[in-house]
Amino acid sequence: MNSDFFAVPPYENEALQEEVRERLDRLTKPPGSLGRLEELALRFCLCRGMPAPELSCMEIFTFAGDHGITEEKITPYPSEVTRQMVLNMVQGGAAVTVMCRKAGIQCVVVDMGVVGTFQDVPGLLIRKVGEGTRNFLREPAMSAEDCERATEIGMELAGRSNADLIGIGEMGIGNTSSASALYSIILDADPEETVGPGTGSSGPQLERKREMVRRAVSFHKKAWNGSSFDALRRVGGFEIAGMAGMIFGASRRRIPVVVDGFVAGAAALVAMRIQPSVRPYIFFSHASGERYHGTFLAREGIRPILSLDMRLGEGTGSVLAMQIMAQAMECYHRMATFESAGVSSSHAS
Amino acid sequence: MNSDFFAVPPYENEALQEEVRERLDRLTKPPGSLGRLEELALRFCLCRGMPAPELSCMEIFTFAGDHGITEEKITPYPSEVTRQMVLNMVQGGAAVTVMCRKAGIQCVVVDMGVVGTFQDVPGLLIRKVGEGTRNFLREPAMSAEDCERATEIGMELAGRSNADLIGIGEMGIGNTSSASALYSIILDADPEETVGPGTGSSGPQLERKREMVRRAVSFHKKAWNGSSFDALRRVGGFEIAGMAGMIFGASRRRIPVVVDGFVAGAAALVAMRIQPSVRPYIFFSHASGERYHGTFLAREGIRPILSLDMRLGEGTGSVLAMQIMAQAMECYHRMATFESAGVSSSHAS
Repeated sequence: MNSDFFAVPPYENEALQEEVRERLDRLTKPPGSLGRLEELALRFCLCRGMPAPELSCMEIFTFAGDHGITEEKITPYPSEVTRQMVLNMVQGGAAVTVMCRKAGIQCVVVDMGVVGTFQDVPGLLIRKVGEGTRNFLREPAMSAEDCERATEIGMELAGRSNADLIGIGEMGIGNTSSASALYSIILDADPEETVGPGTGSSGPQLERKREMVRRAVSFHKKAWNGSSFDALRRVGGFEIAGMAGMIFGASRRRIPVVVDGFVAGAAALVAMRIQPSVRPYIFFSHASGERYHGTFLAREGIRPILSLDMRLGEGTGSVLAMQIMAQAMECYHRMATFESAGVSSSHAS
Repeated sequence: MNSDFFAVPPYENEALQEEVRERLDRLTKPPGSLGRLEELALRFCLCRGMPAPELSCMEIFTFAGDHGITEEKITPYPSEVTRQMVLNMVQGGAAVTVMCRKAGIQCVVVDMGVVGTFQDVPGLLIRKVGEGTRNFLREPAMSAEDCERATEIGMELAGRSNADLIGIGEMGIGNTSSASALYSIILDADPEETVGPGTGSSGPQLERKREMVRRAVSFHKKAWNGSSFDALRRVGGFEIAGMAGMIFGASRRRIPVVVDGFVAGAAALVAMRIQPSVRPYIFFSHASGERYHGTFLAREGIRPILSLDMRLGEGTGSVLAMQIMAQAMECYHRMATFESAGVSSSHAS
């Protein structure tokens, strides 16, 4: 996978940064007093490469896929739940769809590789690369071709989106195991540390999950070529590859991407390692309740927007963070200036 | 001030708690996976005393008042800014009004004691108790009668509100000094610790602010009768008393109150000390960037909803937290159950 293919526009722009900061300081508030909202507004402008970018259209993509590793009985829910939850999402009953509707965010579910077929349903895009991945305890989860195909699908979807801001999330029974294995391989972290309860494994099942990931990581590390793409195809999933691809495709178009929690974070890690220049286009929405996510964020020097102990996935953390970003841009665009409102500015200025 | 007058309905209700928890666990998500959103939904139900309370109407009250202590030149902005900002708010150009409009929250500004007069403007309630407080470096900021009157105004406004959820915030040049003095007196905390930059004092001005608060605290402590109400009238403000009153009035009606940052937090402290049973009705929206607020929250064992380094006041932190609470209740009401969506529940359950 050639990283030049993902060339992203430059984010840093001193003149633009200066212009945005000056605008922020003219608004009727003490300088800097909106705290991280000002940082988010500045970052959004730098991503868009404009001093006053609109934020009128937001879209969440929830990538779904199944995982062969579920054969090892490491999840409290059966793998059919992936398909059932996809239907629940498009029917409007899942947390992410409920929250998107409330927030005025368009929500699209992408079947990247769910086992079973779907009828043609509005809000669901069928982009199935396979009927679930292979069991990564025994063999690579995906062929290089399928993994590349899944990544390209994410890029293509980003290429067609009308959104000013994209959020990503996922659904896939078994995918916290996949994400833990990815963190372990790419960051050389012990599965003891990277594996957590996911949807709710505990006791012997959690021990089993940890043991399976430990064995898989040790197995794949022997043949691993050292690239994050190779780690992705070995222990990742179609939905994780799709999310990484969406980060590439969106960054290329200067559309910032709000990343959900633990599993989406693994996709972001892969994307940042393949093409480091995507990093400023990624907004980490929240610190998940899933163990290791906080460690990962701290290790990468990332301060997420929220920390609400959420560990549901789907894009639910992205929705909440996007609402905060929307408020940041609303203030940026609609607040009066000291001059326009006839408010005295500080003695100091 | 007789705390029986503020008798609040009981919050704890084991049967209701059980019912809400069961409902949360039937929703299509792993139990507990919405993290603090589930805690917020549970608390909202317990406040309302109902298993499925609507959250359809939200209202923010921004209490405004001037402060005699500004004579001491401890603020970077002149005190006229209070009045100018009130006008900016009702004209829709202030951060809180911009954010409320976006969030679908009604915003009411209350003139509790701003210097100068206002024309009759929609969205502004004139409840002026005085033309600013007296300089608390030299004498109590308010008479006991005026302080009680200001508190009653807050109670009355809560009594008339149609909201299911109320947010409070403030505007008042000089009021971080007032809040710092309140924290210092009630919590016996050194002004060295409780005084921060406020709207942006720094260098010699910040030193001066700290010195004035230190002298005022030491002066008032000699005559203080030990009650939080007496502390409020000595170093508080009309808008702070109004916010405390709103907490009493709302709690009495089982309406939870979302409290903004550093100054609103001082009003919450006063309210909790006068009538401890209001505490569960208070939702602390965010940890302010203003120093000491985080210390106060930690000391009281409170984990705020957000932490975004905001230090603007007005109710801006309340708006963001109310949007998150609205999403929590949206999930609670609108998500499908495992049964209704035909989703398999966990093997464990």
